[in-house]
Amino acid sequence: MGDNTIGTRFKITSFGESHGKVVGIVIDGTPAGLELDINFLLSELEKRKTSQSSLTTSREEPDIPEILSGMLDGKTTGAPICLIIHNKDVDSSKYEKYKDFLRPSQIDYSLLKKQGGFGDFRGSGRFSGRLTAGFVMAGAIAKQVLQKYGISVFSYTKRIGTISDETVYDVRNLYNLFELRENSLVRALDHELSKKMENSIKKVKLEKDSLGGVIKCVVSGLPEGVGGPMFNSIESNLAKAIFSIPAVKGIEFGAGFKATTMKGSEHNDPWVVKDGKITTLKNDSGGIIGGISIGTPIEFNVGFKPTPTIGKLQKTVRLSTMEPVEMAFSGRHDPCIVPRAVVVVEAMTAIVILDFLLLEGKIPTVLKP
Amino acid sequence: MGDNTIGTRFKITSFGESHGKVVGIVIDGTPAGLELDINFLLSELEKRKTSQSSLTTSREEPDIPEILSGMLDGKTTGAPICLIIHNKDVDSSKYEKYKDFLRPSQIDYSLLKKQGGFGDFRGSGRFSGRLTAGFVMAGAIAKQVLQKYGISVFSYTKRIGTISDETVYDVRNLYNLFELRENSLVRALDHELSKKMENSIKKVKLEKDSLGGVIKCVVSGLPEGVGGPMFNSIESNLAKAIFSIPAVKGIEFGAGFKATTMKGSEHNDPWVVKDGKITTLKNDSGGIIGGISIGTPIEFNVGFKPTPTIGKLQKTVRLSTMEPVEMAFSGRHDPCIVPRAVVVVEAMTAIVILDFLLLEGKIPTVLKP
Amino acid sequence: MGDNTIGTRFKITSFGESHGKVVGIVIDGTPAGLELDINFLLSELEKRKTSQSSLTTSREEPDIPEILSGMLDGKTTGAPICLIIHNKDVDSSKYEKYKDFLRPSQIDYSLLKKQGGFGDFRGSGRFSGRLTAGFVMAGAIAKQVLQKYGISVFSYTKRIGTISDETVYDVRNLYNLFELRENSLVRALDHELSKKMENSIKKVKLEKDSLGGVIKCVVSGLPEGVGGPMFNSIESNLAKAIFSIPAVKGIEFGAGFKATTMKGSEHNDPWVVKDGKITTLKNDSGGIIGGISIGTPIEFNVGFKPTPTIGKLQKTVRLSTMEPVEMAFSGRHDPCIVPRAVVVVEAMTAIVILDFLLLEGKIPTVLKP
Amino acid sequence: MGDNTIGTRFKITSFGESHGKVVGIVIDGTPAGLELDINFLLSELEKRKTSQSSLTTSREEPDIPEILSGMLDGKTTGAPICLIIHNKDVDSSKYEKYKDFLRPSQIDYSLLKKQGGFGDFRGSGRFSGRLTAGFVMAGAIAKQVLQKYGISVFSYTKRIGTISDETVYDVRNLYNLFELRENSLVRALDHELSKKMENSIKKVKLEKDSLGGVIKCVVSGLPEGVGGPMFNSIESNLAKAIFSIPAVKGIEFGAGFKATTMKGSEHNDPWVVKDGKITTLKNDSGGIIGGISIGTPIEFNVGFKPTPTIGKLQKTVRLSTMEPVEMAFSGRHDPCIVPRAVVVVEAMTAIVILDFLLLEGKIPTVLKP
Repeated sequence: MGDNTIGTRFKITSFGESHGKVVGIVIDGTPAGLELDINFLLSELEKRKTSQSSLTTSREEPDIPEILSGMLDGKTTGAPICLIIHNKDVDSSKYEKYKDFLRPSQIDYSLLKKQGGFGDFRGSGRFSGRLTAGFVMAGAIAKQVLQKYGISVFSYTKRIGTISDETVYDVRNLYNLFELRENSLVRALDHELSKKMENSIKKVKLEKDSLGGVIKCVVSGLPEGVGGPMFNSIESNLAKAIFSIPAVKGIEFGAGFKATTMKGSEHNDPWVVKDGKITTLKNDSGGIIGGISIGTPIEFNVGFKPTPTIGKLQKTVRLSTMEPVEMAFSGRHDPCIVPRAVVVVEAMTAIVILDFLLLEGKIPTVLKP
Repeated sequence: MGDNTIGTRFKITSFGESHGKVVGIVIDGTPAGLELDINFLLSELEKRKTSQSSLTTSREEPDIPEILSGMLDGKTTGAPICLIIHNKDVDSSKYEKYKDFLRPSQIDYSLLKKQGGFGDFRGSGRFSGRLTAGFVMAGAIAKQVLQKYGISVFSYTKRIGTISDETVYDVRNLYNLFELRENSLVRALDHELSKKMENSIKKVKLEKDSLGGVIKCVVSGLPEGVGGPMFNSIESNLAKAIFSIPAVKGIEFGAGFKATTMKGSEHNDPWVVKDGKITTLKNDSGGIIGGISIGTPIEFNVGFKPTPTIGKLQKTVRLSTMEPVEMAFSGRHDPCIVPRAVVVVEAMTAIVILDFLLLEGKIPTVLKP
Repeated sequence: MGDNTIGTRFKITSFGESHGKVVGIVIDGTPAGLELDINFLLSELEKRKTSQSSLTTSREEPDIPEILSGMLDGKTTGAPICLIIHNKDVDSSKYEKYKDFLRPSQIDYSLLKKQGGFGDFRGSGRFSGRLTAGFVMAGAIAKQVLQKYGISVFSYTKRIGTISDETVYDVRNLYNLFELRENSLVRALDHELSKKMENSIKKVKLEKDSLGGVIKCVVSGLPEGVGGPMFNSIESNLAKAIFSIPAVKGIEFGAGFKATTMKGSEHNDPWVVKDGKITTLKNDSGGIIGGISIGTPIEFNVGFKPTPTIGKLQKTVRLSTMEPVEMAFSGRHDPCIVPRAVVVVEAMTAIVILDFLLLEGKIPTVLKP
Repeated sequence: MGDNTIGTRFKITSFGESHGKVVGIVIDGTPAGLELDINFLLSELEKRKTSQSSLTTSREEPDIPEILSGMLDGKTTGAPICLIIHNKDVDSSKYEKYKDFLRPSQIDYSLLKKQGGFGDFRGSGRFSGRLTAGFVMAGAIAKQVLQKYGISVFSYTKRIGTISDETVYDVRNLYNLFELRENSLVRALDHELSKKMENSIKKVKLEKDSLGGVIKCVVSGLPEGVGGPMFNSIESNLAKAIFSIPAVKGIEFGAGFKATTMKGSEHNDPWVVKDGKITTLKNDSGGIIGGISIGTPIEFNVGFKPTPTIGKLQKTVRLSTMEPVEMAFSGRHDPCIVPRAVVVVEAMTAIVILDFLLLEGKIPTVLKP
């Protein structure tokens, strides 16, 4: 009910279903005069795509977007940009097969209670991770605008299951990190840990089980003074957007939950002068104090639960008879969604940050040539 | 800039400053016909009050609210309710003293960059935790409405610094938990751990240092089918509201970040039939799947950083000369904000949940007598 | 900049351009379980179509919509419905020809000042009346939902230029009025006046000039008690939506501007009891008092200016030289937009009324079968 | 239900009741650093005050505002400004007397249907014109900001009942017009017509009847390129705000409803070059084309119905018995609300225009000293 639009000046509206005709997004508020880099858009979609490696679902979706509006001669016009991707490899047979059973920690029961019998349950319908392809397209456009103003958004896999990368990377050099990440199937930065993560996913796949993980996200180049206290703090708006990504169960900024175990004297970031500019010695605040950016990189972690649909036997209920049963739910699912979600976290972040900058007049609505 | 209002059908607008005349709130959307229990309102404010124990700040604020509108003959009329609390014990002398220094991890630099020289910096102005008195008043009203529909919101201190309560309480019996909590100075549930937490706060206070912690919040009695996928999921809207509380650095639902280390087969909550009703064996999902309530209690943790203003020497910068200095910032601050924030987390949660129920037509705009 | 979405629970997002690939609309908030009547949707579009008679523009657009999402087995699922119409008969040659001239009372200068050189000026781009095809599609869906709850929205041409129909029709019998209207090329109700209106349009077309007019709109069957005082009054929200239709210059409810010349004793609508129910003797209030429906039909007039683009010589300015010139701007335009706008006024009205009813819980989000 | 807030970046929230403790407003989004001119604020309230002449209601309200927040050392801080006015001369005796009767064209029936028995009906509660005192205070602040950027908002009484001022004033010289207006009890510009209007009000007062009228509003100095097509056009947002003023029944921009009788060749405003700048020869468009400002003054008319509560005998219904009755409703009401509404129309206009300029980054959030 009117829940598929987010943003004020940079506003996205999601439509489409996992097993419907298309997945789509309307992007309203892109500054006019942006020369859209379609190859970048495609490379972003590539990062979210199915079948990109042995670690991901076998559903085959080429994910070629079609631009329906908002462009003229390769440039944005300031009008809403509608982008769609046609669904190709739809297999709703599993839906019929499992219709009478509640998959544990899947949206079957939620949908039933929300929608009664009416709703598109096939492939999880509107709840499917597939919808995030729309987020990625909007994010790709937002990133291109931000890039023009020296702002970068970067995420990587910090943890898969119990394998965690605790290295503190120098997030002021995102280009190096980007290269490291692109060499990793799971989008981690450390080569050795990446291999371990890959193996843990392969192992869990054989076990017909699944894993979750943590994605770290960094925004660098954001000017100071963006955001505000109260209800439109940077944290408030980022958190709202990030929790719209399926399977997210937690978000923490800066030192996050670790901060809860620290003393003030440890957690506080001392102010220093560097190259004539005020900054902080470390960044446990995650670049935000009082809901407002302080010029250091925005840093936050996002926690993903393990994929709920697994092939292992699980206890559940047969709806028609209300009997307890044990079921194994096969299907085409990622044993771990985290590697493909890296670019989705970046996208939602870029969308929120661009909205802030447009709203505060820090990026104009018509780009200078 | 227009950032002090939140909600759609149950909407609150915050005003006032830490060292101004008042702290206030306009509450728009309370159903008509509610007999307001003023004693309950006062008891809620009492839980957030300063000087409630040796563990809290020495600022003396009686916090007696005045109702300016929206009531007739002790009942709500459906019109906006404006509540104010007059500030009494204002001491802005520290502000003058420290004006030229940036307090580490405090909002001085943010305010400077956001507002230039213009702004009310005294006592952190609009960024002060004192503003949450308004949230608590709105929350007290929201709770009274929810109560009529069998919905309870309950929070407790789960961790102070490194002392953590890992017990899994039976959150279907909130009344018992409430009693346990009210016997604890830090609003914990376990008597022994409570004492340890108190001592750790006392110790850190002597050291002129500070502590953070974790508050757990539970919503019980919420009907199934509330919320939705995408941008108005229960998690999205709760997170947005919770991050408007000063010092919050993280939020996690259900198993939260722990879920990121679990396998699907461990994390998934098996469906079972209990008393003829479908429910789950455990609640690692935190009562929400696909952004929608499933009838089990909503459960989430909120992480607070340690109070940034401490009396210990800290490295920082003198603004007028851009010199590095070491400063100790005295002032009247809680060594740990967590015990007083317990009722604030409850308040923001009640506000969001009531907004959902009004928006979805599950609570009417005029209460039956 | 984020201006292409309207509504709270029933929310539409417009995209597309006059001379772009498509005109489209995302409709978010249609209750689930509605069996969509496609023929009705087509017949509504037919009423707005170009080339429907000698009185309208010669642009040939079959206007066949494609449904991209939100439907399953012919029923709505509660998910956003995206509908597009492919533009067929695009002729942007005129745009090149007139690029250096400002058409009087057309959007050239506005676009220039708003967008600089960047924007889609072809066929008026986002400002074109063609975009209202999207409104009509959303309106057709809203009307089908309203119909299930006994609510009808009906408009007719009350005036073309100086020919005005001052008859007070019995708006409680909309079916009869509908039949009368469908027999009129200009969508008037009086046969004789209709002929006169047609002739005045033909005459003005030969003169290479244009006409405006007034559309009256009626909503019948709306329950009492919908709306509210202040900023979400029925008038406020209807007016906001109606002014988004190109060429609208005025709106008045009930007796409207005529009320400004009446005494209170004349204008006041006496309360009476009819069939055991309270109602009014007449309806000068237009069915709304204090922003709230009183159960009598909602009635309002919408004023349209004459089509600005005309073939007559007009004074204007050549941009490149800033010289005064006289120009005749040919192109494919309706000499009077009013007959085609009748269904557009209905559409925006239905959209707003459905939003109110969903928001106030008077229409459920899942329709009973 | 959440309907008492309007605006995006400059946002006002109304609270209070006609016969309650206060009338109040929270103004969120005033740029920081504005030296508030309290005398101007008072003079604006003076223009809306009761008992300002023999033509207005006898209720005696000094209307002295109290500033609760958002100011420091006489300057705005960027924080929400809360202003209240205490109600003094409350007489709710009439409410008891007429409780069982529906006043024709008054809000009794609307309130009954909306609120059931619960609501504050005294003095029309939230529906009272008295609430517009809050609008006037917010408008006074908005005007002061606009003034700094060379933008003026000016209204005058164009018609009372059948006495209409059809002169086309030179709205580029608002200062002269302001002086003329302040010499008129009814806030008209023509001395002779003003006297006639006064007399018509006196006459109707003796007859225990009432009159309506038309207020014309002009915004001068607004830069070009403000606003947009679709749902946030200048007309859309102004209309939404203006219809929140009680008794408004119509709004028309530029030539308005008269435009509906003109040909395109008459109505179109020719573009000309004047002092090296592009402008129009006349202003039938009312300064807005395509929802966007073109640099000429914004001009619109607002129609007010006659005051509904009159002392004459009227037909109505006794609620308890559902019998028809004839009643005369005495009370303290203006025989014509128009003269006092002039400043209210200005206020709502200034609020909307400032919101546009803040949103589009044309006025900064911190004013330069």
